[in-house]
Amino acid sequence: MSAAAIEKVACDKECVTITWTNGRTNRYHHIWLRHNCPTARHKVVGEYTLDPVSIPLDITPAAAHLADEGRLHITWANDNHHSHYDPVWLYTNAYEPEARAERRFRPLLWTTDLLGNFLPEVHYDAIMTGDAALRDWLSLLRQYGFAIVRGVPTESEMVLKVAERISFLRNSNFGVLFNVESMPDPNSLAYTAVKLNAHTDLVSREAQPGLQFLHCLVFDAAGGESILVDGFAVAEELRHTDPKDWELLTTLPIRFRYQDKATDVEAKFPIIRLDADGNYFEVRYSTALLAPLDVDHKHVLPFYRAFDNFSRLLRDPRYEYKFRLQPGDCEVFDNRRVLHGRDEFNPQSGPRHLQGCYIDTDDYLSRLKVLERNGRDFRESMSIIR
Amino acid sequence: MSAAAIEKVACDKECVTITWTNGRTNRYHHIWLRHNCPTARHKVVGEYTLDPVSIPLDITPAAAHLADEGRLHITWANDNHHSHYDPVWLYTNAYEPEARAERRFRPLLWTTDLLGNFLPEVHYDAIMTGDAALRDWLSLLRQYGFAIVRGVPTESEMVLKVAERISFLRNSNFGVLFNVESMPDPNSLAYTAVKLNAHTDLVSREAQPGLQFLHCLVFDAAGGESILVDGFAVAEELRHTDPKDWELLTTLPIRFRYQDKATDVEAKFPIIRLDADGNYFEVRYSTALLAPLDVDHKHVLPFYRAFDNFSRLLRDPRYEYKFRLQPGDCEVFDNRRVLHGRDEFNPQSGPRHLQGCYIDTDDYLSRLKVLERNGRDFRESMSIIR
Repeated sequence: MSAAAIEKVACDKECVTITWTNGRTNRYHHIWLRHNCPTARHKVVGEYTLDPVSIPLDITPAAAHLADEGRLHITWANDNHHSHYDPVWLYTNAYEPEARAERRFRPLLWTTDLLGNFLPEVHYDAIMTGDAALRDWLSLLRQYGFAIVRGVPTESEMVLKVAERISFLRNSNFGVLFNVESMPDPNSLAYTAVKLNAHTDLVSREAQPGLQFLHCLVFDAAGGESILVDGFAVAEELRHTDPKDWELLTTLPIRFRYQDKATDVEAKFPIIRLDADGNYFEVRYSTALLAPLDVDHKHVLPFYRAFDNFSRLLRDPRYEYKFRLQPGDCEVFDNRRVLHGRDEFNPQSGPRHLQGCYIDTDDYLSRLKVLERNGRDFRESMSIIR
Repeated sequence: MSAAAIEKVACDKECVTITWTNGRTNRYHHIWLRHNCPTARHKVVGEYTLDPVSIPLDITPAAAHLADEGRLHITWANDNHHSHYDPVWLYTNAYEPEARAERRFRPLLWTTDLLGNFLPEVHYDAIMTGDAALRDWLSLLRQYGFAIVRGVPTESEMVLKVAERISFLRNSNFGVLFNVESMPDPNSLAYTAVKLNAHTDLVSREAQPGLQFLHCLVFDAAGGESILVDGFAVAEELRHTDPKDWELLTTLPIRFRYQDKATDVEAKFPIIRLDADGNYFEVRYSTALLAPLDVDHKHVLPFYRAFDNFSRLLRDPRYEYKFRLQPGDCEVFDNRRVLHGRDEFNPQSGPRHLQGCYIDTDDYLSRLKVLERNGRDFRESMSIIR
């Protein structure tokens, strides 16, 4: 990275200030620098072996300067320890608000109009063999929150093969593999033939699964069209049209609960959840698994009103992408962003059989980041190895 | 529940007010009642089939009264629908602040002194055969955040049997079963012989695993004593001694990151996390897996100071329960509340071999709740079946 060359080093009581040759200036606190000395980490494992508690809170450099090889060199006043910092590592880990904002991922929010121009889809043969195709598929998933895999052999458990191409699977009380079809003794509305409003799965669990895979094996029934909705795009519209409702839905924790003979799980989180930086973190939405509302009296009516508004937007044709899965299609979507549903179908008119499974968000993002290393040693990013 | 008999029913524009024979009064919003009419749920599955969006926000009863059989009976003005509510269900689901506070679970916070009087431990034979013993074990785990299982056969993979007595297992990049011993090519400090400060596992994942199981198979090495610390008890002391530090640690999201050849996961949450009601939700603590601090400049020094304070308390002998695992012991602890560590050991002096696995919090609490049903049908609590 040619931008990351140090032009000047200055030092005051609290920070080392680096001026870069591209004009950017970054300040690094002394204790932050001492904690991140490359010698603070285990050379093989890469974890910190230096205990931050052992660093004096008021630590200061005896000297800080730009060394001949372009690195920042510090000698510490308390113990004469020498630290050498790689400029690329310093540049990459700057923590001014602008630097932090630059690192943020911004997904591509969509309406059905946008999908008319470009539908994220990939072919089974490509993703199962090539690492570049796998990376492109994961990038599509991250940007759009979904991507359809075409041409998956219509054999039982192939959905597991597709998912395991990314990572290990996430289990649940419904099993690692679940069969979505109309059943005589269902333990979920998913296993009936009724219409399912667009929703997220496993809302009653603390961690909703990340990626969901639904592979169509057989589909002769009338009805049963699939629905996908970008929950973040809808939330963003609500933020503009009804800021008060948006505010309530992003802050008021709502309880969901699932029970059957062997299971009783509940979770309580806002319907629209933001992360620490105010980005959309997840949508948690199901009309089927709401528990009796358990909030302060003053929130009851405002919640029903806000939920109503959000629900109507989620079902707006501008956002509802409707399509008919074909045998061999596997729809893959970020279950915490893109809500999924289906129209009612008539099980008398023919079978409809999907198989599904989950992977956690951590693990699909991990796979993408490892592919993006392009073979570089992971300790490079810790500046242990250059 | 004899307390849950209705004495009087009153109705105003917004709510139905119930006066109970024990003197308690609860108010229920009309829309809340309509949404929770027993007919709103699927009779087999128990999920809501009534879409809340279909209920008029200003719905009101045409009539509400105490029926002869002791139930609340409402006729709705908009469509003449009749709803009948079981008094026990209404009593149990009241949502006044006092009713909600009563339902909250309060764990038993401990110091080493308290453990001197009572150590939560159970025997393998008891928990593997009896449901009552299983329930008691899970109750201990919920109260104390840990319980040691004695007498587990010292055979490989027995730890999976112990865990699966509760629920299915949680996978991770370290595998469903992990071997904790000093290894030649480690990908975690856990797999070396170094001292590990008390910490929580998988801090770099969004959902830290709930229960952790560590089964001692062989232990001849010198050193390597185990450490357990009640993170909630320590957090509570910090709240009183350094409220500003506590405030910062409960609100400032801190980034953790784990990398090896095949994995790159990160998570950003406060070190001490509270739930929506202000209860302790989890502690996320590791000095080894902190990522370079990525917070606003104004928080850098205050964070290091608060982290330092919390760390010193975590290592205070009043909180550090130290013991030596014996072959056949399996320590089981709530990984998100009770931090675990170990002293350095000398792998030259003899082997030390533990096997471990995880279960999610959702699943151990689910198992406990299902055991507490005592065989009653799950739809009773939804008032579908009486």
